[in-house]
Amino acid sequence: MARAPQVLRGMRDFLPEQMLLRQHVLNSFREVFERYGFEPIETPVIEYLETLTGKYGEDEKLIYSFQDRGERDVGLRYDLTVPLARFVANHRNELNFPFKRYHIAPVFRADRPQRGRYREFWQCDADIVGTKSMMADAEVVSVWIDALSAINMPGFVVHINHRKLLMSLAEVAGVPNEQTSTIHRAIDKLAKIGEDGVISEMVSNDIPEDAARRVLDLVSTRGEPGHVFEQLVDRLQGNTLAEEGLTELRSLFGYLESMGADPAHYTLDLTLARGLDYYTGPVFEALSVDANIGSLGGAGRYDGLVGMFSGEDLPATGCSLGLERIFDVIQERNLVGVPPTVSQTMVTIFNEETVGDSLSLVGELRRAGISCEIYVGERWDLRRQLQYANRKGIPTTVILGPDEIKRGEVILREMETGEQSTLARSDLLGVLQARSAHA
Amino acid sequence: MARAPQVLRGMRDFLPEQMLLRQHVLNSFREVFERYGFEPIETPVIEYLETLTGKYGEDEKLIYSFQDRGERDVGLRYDLTVPLARFVANHRNELNFPFKRYHIAPVFRADRPQRGRYREFWQCDADIVGTKSMMADAEVVSVWIDALSAINMPGFVVHINHRKLLMSLAEVAGVPNEQTSTIHRAIDKLAKIGEDGVISEMVSNDIPEDAARRVLDLVSTRGEPGHVFEQLVDRLQGNTLAEEGLTELRSLFGYLESMGADPAHYTLDLTLARGLDYYTGPVFEALSVDANIGSLGGAGRYDGLVGMFSGEDLPATGCSLGLERIFDVIQERNLVGVPPTVSQTMVTIFNEETVGDSLSLVGELRRAGISCEIYVGERWDLRRQLQYANRKGIPTTVILGPDEIKRGEVILREMETGEQSTLARSDLLGVLQARSAHA
Repeated sequence: MARAPQVLRGMRDFLPEQMLLRQHVLNSFREVFERYGFEPIETPVIEYLETLTGKYGEDEKLIYSFQDRGERDVGLRYDLTVPLARFVANHRNELNFPFKRYHIAPVFRADRPQRGRYREFWQCDADIVGTKSMMADAEVVSVWIDALSAINMPGFVVHINHRKLLMSLAEVAGVPNEQTSTIHRAIDKLAKIGEDGVISEMVSNDIPEDAARRVLDLVSTRGEPGHVFEQLVDRLQGNTLAEEGLTELRSLFGYLESMGADPAHYTLDLTLARGLDYYTGPVFEALSVDANIGSLGGAGRYDGLVGMFSGEDLPATGCSLGLERIFDVIQERNLVGVPPTVSQTMVTIFNEETVGDSLSLVGELRRAGISCEIYVGERWDLRRQLQYANRKGIPTTVILGPDEIKRGEVILREMETGEQSTLARSDLLGVLQARSAHA
Repeated sequence: MARAPQVLRGMRDFLPEQMLLRQHVLNSFREVFERYGFEPIETPVIEYLETLTGKYGEDEKLIYSFQDRGERDVGLRYDLTVPLARFVANHRNELNFPFKRYHIAPVFRADRPQRGRYREFWQCDADIVGTKSMMADAEVVSVWIDALSAINMPGFVVHINHRKLLMSLAEVAGVPNEQTSTIHRAIDKLAKIGEDGVISEMVSNDIPEDAARRVLDLVSTRGEPGHVFEQLVDRLQGNTLAEEGLTELRSLFGYLESMGADPAHYTLDLTLARGLDYYTGPVFEALSVDANIGSLGGAGRYDGLVGMFSGEDLPATGCSLGLERIFDVIQERNLVGVPPTVSQTMVTIFNEETVGDSLSLVGELRRAGISCEIYVGERWDLRRQLQYANRKGIPTTVILGPDEIKRGEVILREMETGEQSTLARSDLLGVLQARSAHA
């Protein structure tokens, strides 16, 4: 027989141990989202191609597209935002606004695969549609903080800026508006190339040095948010765009404080300059202080997008967690204690005469809620059974031979140490329940 | 703006209320599978086309296939069995055998859409690979019973037969082997067309009436399994195929009894004649006694399939639950009490001065594990806020005005009755926790 077919490059199988970790993370996220009143939705993997085209700019070429059997042009879901816009347009009258939804699903991009970049990968988005209130933005930042905290993500901070502040920087510098994107490119690199680097990048792009210094000085304003806002209000007075942005950010920070969001996990960062054509209000990025971890997801307010299909004004804000990055970090650093297997124990079989006793014990344990296996291989030598349990990482086995059965006992074996203890059969359930309560 | 694009026919969006039901069912299934030691895996949606072709016979034309940007022929996952075979071949050395896995995922078929038949639908398979032991088949039947019980599926029975018994029926009748499939088609209709119908169908297909009566008489054997097996052993003596099948079925039924599987939920049914080219041993089908519900899934032993890519002998047995059918039945009959929304309560906002108090209460409740919303709309009139809570089905709201804040109180409003009670703010958490414990 020829070599077995493989998976396509950039696509992946997930083995049980990886899946248990992924499920643990997704369950944690679902629980946090639902605690905020975000509700799950689902959309099809395949959409009409016209739904997807014209939405992703140059990246449109990465859409997996084809003709189906009915010669319809179709494409595979590229992200969860365009499907949200179509979903809202199609189900306008069935939804309650402001509409808070989360969506966890795989998306597909015919991209060049590389480390950490896949052709099929899972996204996890939480958005609020139908309100301009900064409270919605505060909910998004806060749910994000809680989600990342729930999986013990180390040292993450949600950086917050505002598109209108970013757009006002040319005016601050006193240079033409066309220079705005040059300024953004430069300040976005502050953490990487330092203050001098930022200045020289601006200067080499025809921004006068004193103008460059004014910009850098402004975006470097640091400190306790209330104090920073005061300074900024003074310095940006008269700049209408900037004043609007500042007013919104002050509301947002006020709401976050009232909610009790941990200030160690969010910060005003005037150098954050991401996804400008898309966002219309506050923008967010979750970064780890650990440079090897990097960005854990992006977010922001995008008031123009969700209404695109219905032609309505549907302001929206949301966050998108970079699930694959998060899974990778958790796995590499062993951040959550997911056991290697689902089973708490396995009952062994001695021989044909005792198999019924083993099975009835398994049935009892399962009905009491204990995850329990029985060895389903064809040969019942104990060595083979213990090897199976060991390899799978089942923490204990219950050994049940004719002598134990006669005496109403079982032997409980700790698989890691090989330590065995004899106990009354009737005590086994209690012992296993106590163990799982402590796990 | 033009009419918004729709979803493709045979594909569906799921609204929050449907998704909550689907998630509840899937979580119940996962929990049951894991209690048996089945572990989750995942495979890509897109596979090399060569992995999929040649596996589904005539239905192969229903595979969604296309060329990707690298001009590779690819196809969308058509079921979860062929991907399992590829997965096992690719990861042979990373798996523990007997390998017990479950897989819950959408599959794609370019089929003609009709009521209950979709082009994208979810499957839920649990299989055991690498053992011929009937204990594996017993595990599959038992996990299925527990899964359907966990979602309160009414009056279901897993019907059990054996391919070898089915293949022996021509010999029983004393007609040529070529008549086997005629016999199967006829007996499979017994419940629908009755005994006379079955006889006349066989007779009209050139099976002598006395032969037809012998077959019918045999497959109609009913009663307590031990007694039926005794009768069958007598009557099928000397028929090697039948004897092999009977021996396996007796083991299977013995194991089920030892496990304590509820005999109301499984039965020997010699008329069950499904998927013969595929199965090699016991075959199962879950049927509801309620004729409007019908089949809830099929299963069986298929020793030839999983090894097809690796060229190894990899016996396997498993079950596939018809998820969409199950979701439909549960929704139509309201079988599981899933609340219409995730939120237990919503804190209202009185005005700009009190919004901070409302937010800090929301934060406290969430940190204590209560699913709690705050109204994120732009205008804060109470009527609008209560309407939002009502429409979403949030059971209670917490009203917090300046007077309540001053007195350290809150008003808890039951949304269904409109009944309101005043309580100390410090008692609210306890009251909400008690409610959710009783829910």
